[in-house]
Amino acid sequence: MQDELETGLARILHLSPAPRLSVAGRTDAGVHAVGQVAHADLPVTDPTALARRLNGLLPADVRIHAVTVAPVGFDARFSALSRCYHYQLSDAAYGVDPLRRHDTVASSRRLDVAAMATAAAALVGDHDFAAYCRHREGATTVRRLLRLDVARDGGQGSCAGSRISVLAEADAFCHSMVRALVGALLAVGEGRRPLDWPATVLADGRRDPGVRVAHAHGLTLEAVRYPPDAELASRAVRTRHLRTAESP
Amino acid sequence: MQDELETGLARILHLSPAPRLSVAGRTDAGVHAVGQVAHADLPVTDPTALARRLNGLLPADVRIHAVTVAPVGFDARFSALSRCYHYQLSDAAYGVDPLRRHDTVASSRRLDVAAMATAAAALVGDHDFAAYCRHREGATTVRRLLRLDVARDGGQGSCAGSRISVLAEADAFCHSMVRALVGALLAVGEGRRPLDWPATVLADGRRDPGVRVAHAHGLTLEAVRYPPDAELASRAVRTRHLRTAESP
Repeated sequence: MQDELETGLARILHLSPAPRLSVAGRTDAGVHAVGQVAHADLPVTDPTALARRLNGLLPADVRIHAVTVAPVGFDARFSALSRCYHYQLSDAAYGVDPLRRHDTVASSRRLDVAAMATAAAALVGDHDFAAYCRHREGATTVRRLLRLDVARDGGQGSCAGSRISVLAEADAFCHSMVRALVGALLAVGEGRRPLDWPATVLADGRRDPGVRVAHAHGLTLEAVRYPPDAELASRAVRTRHLRTAESP
Repeated sequence: MQDELETGLARILHLSPAPRLSVAGRTDAGVHAVGQVAHADLPVTDPTALARRLNGLLPADVRIHAVTVAPVGFDARFSALSRCYHYQLSDAAYGVDPLRRHDTVASSRRLDVAAMATAAAALVGDHDFAAYCRHREGATTVRRLLRLDVARDGGQGSCAGSRISVLAEADAFCHSMVRALVGALLAVGEGRRPLDWPATVLADGRRDPGVRVAHAHGLTLEAVRYPPDAELASRAVRTRHLRTAESP
């Protein structure tokens, strides 16, 4: 996605080499994004026309919602207050509703969503998420998990009640952290582990082989939140200080 | 879909020729269905196992929610009280959210949803929908349109407010009727026709070249409703009397 966008920008704006985008939320291969945010320094006079031309050029699976001139001090990655991800599961006996199979993962067992929600609530807060992060020398794994909600959709018609959503919001996530958290919650939901197991793993501070990182295609970056314009620059300075260049 | 299902049933149940399914709601090429219902007379002892085996055999874009023994007098098509269809549009400047592009149609103009809702309300009721049906000799085009709701989704994040749904429920629809109704409403929503135009076309009773039948892939059969078991047989007799074999 980032590559295609950078190539498109280079082509439309006649730039060589292609501009480099700074992106708010990393999405691994297979992960979707509906609310991604990126910035770059570009010679643009008509942002609306640029969005239109990009959408004419990009493949149908990438759409530009808007191009705007960023407020002073804005950094797509470092100014962000939080990222919100959505993980979608289906535990219907028939698998996944075909229309949602591209962003929903099938669970072969019926899930105890109440147990998952209780286990999830115990993970919210300021913690060292080393047990749910890929270790990288010199990078902090301390994160503020603002929200980890598990709910079963009311749904409509005969699909009612087989869609399960995990909504995760944090100041930032380390690599594959949401998928590792969902993997731990799935172990609880399937009855393979007790309610307090995800929190025990967290407290142990080490990756646990019992945590199976959930499939990428169930995950969607929903939104990135920013502070009011006046605080964008100071937020960016503070975050940049906290994190090394590779851990968004 | 029907073909694949009939072939799958023949294979699992060792039937030759393949059984013929009676299907509740016709879906033209490109139209989706999440709540389709069908019946057939089959030698089945374990319906749950049959559903599981069918799902193992069918492609990922067809899922069997359940197989059950039908109550006495049940006819998937003729016992139905109503069909509910959902037409999905996006009038975002960027087109359609990539994750929904398979079941959502882009409108290149911003739509006046309030005008569409008002125009739609005037079509509800018992009418001869000849203007919105493909004419067939000897087939009635009288239908009871129970519901034609147009609404803009609240949505989430940056997608908020660009998704528009048309929910249509009728005792039965003629061929391409929902798509013709949506086409008429789109003419109002885009400001090309006045509010009362869809009702005027209805009253004229003739197909109007101004009605552009909307694209198939925005349409989904959501649900089929049936009466209580005791009324299934009488309902089937009454409907069969009203309709000829080819107009579900």
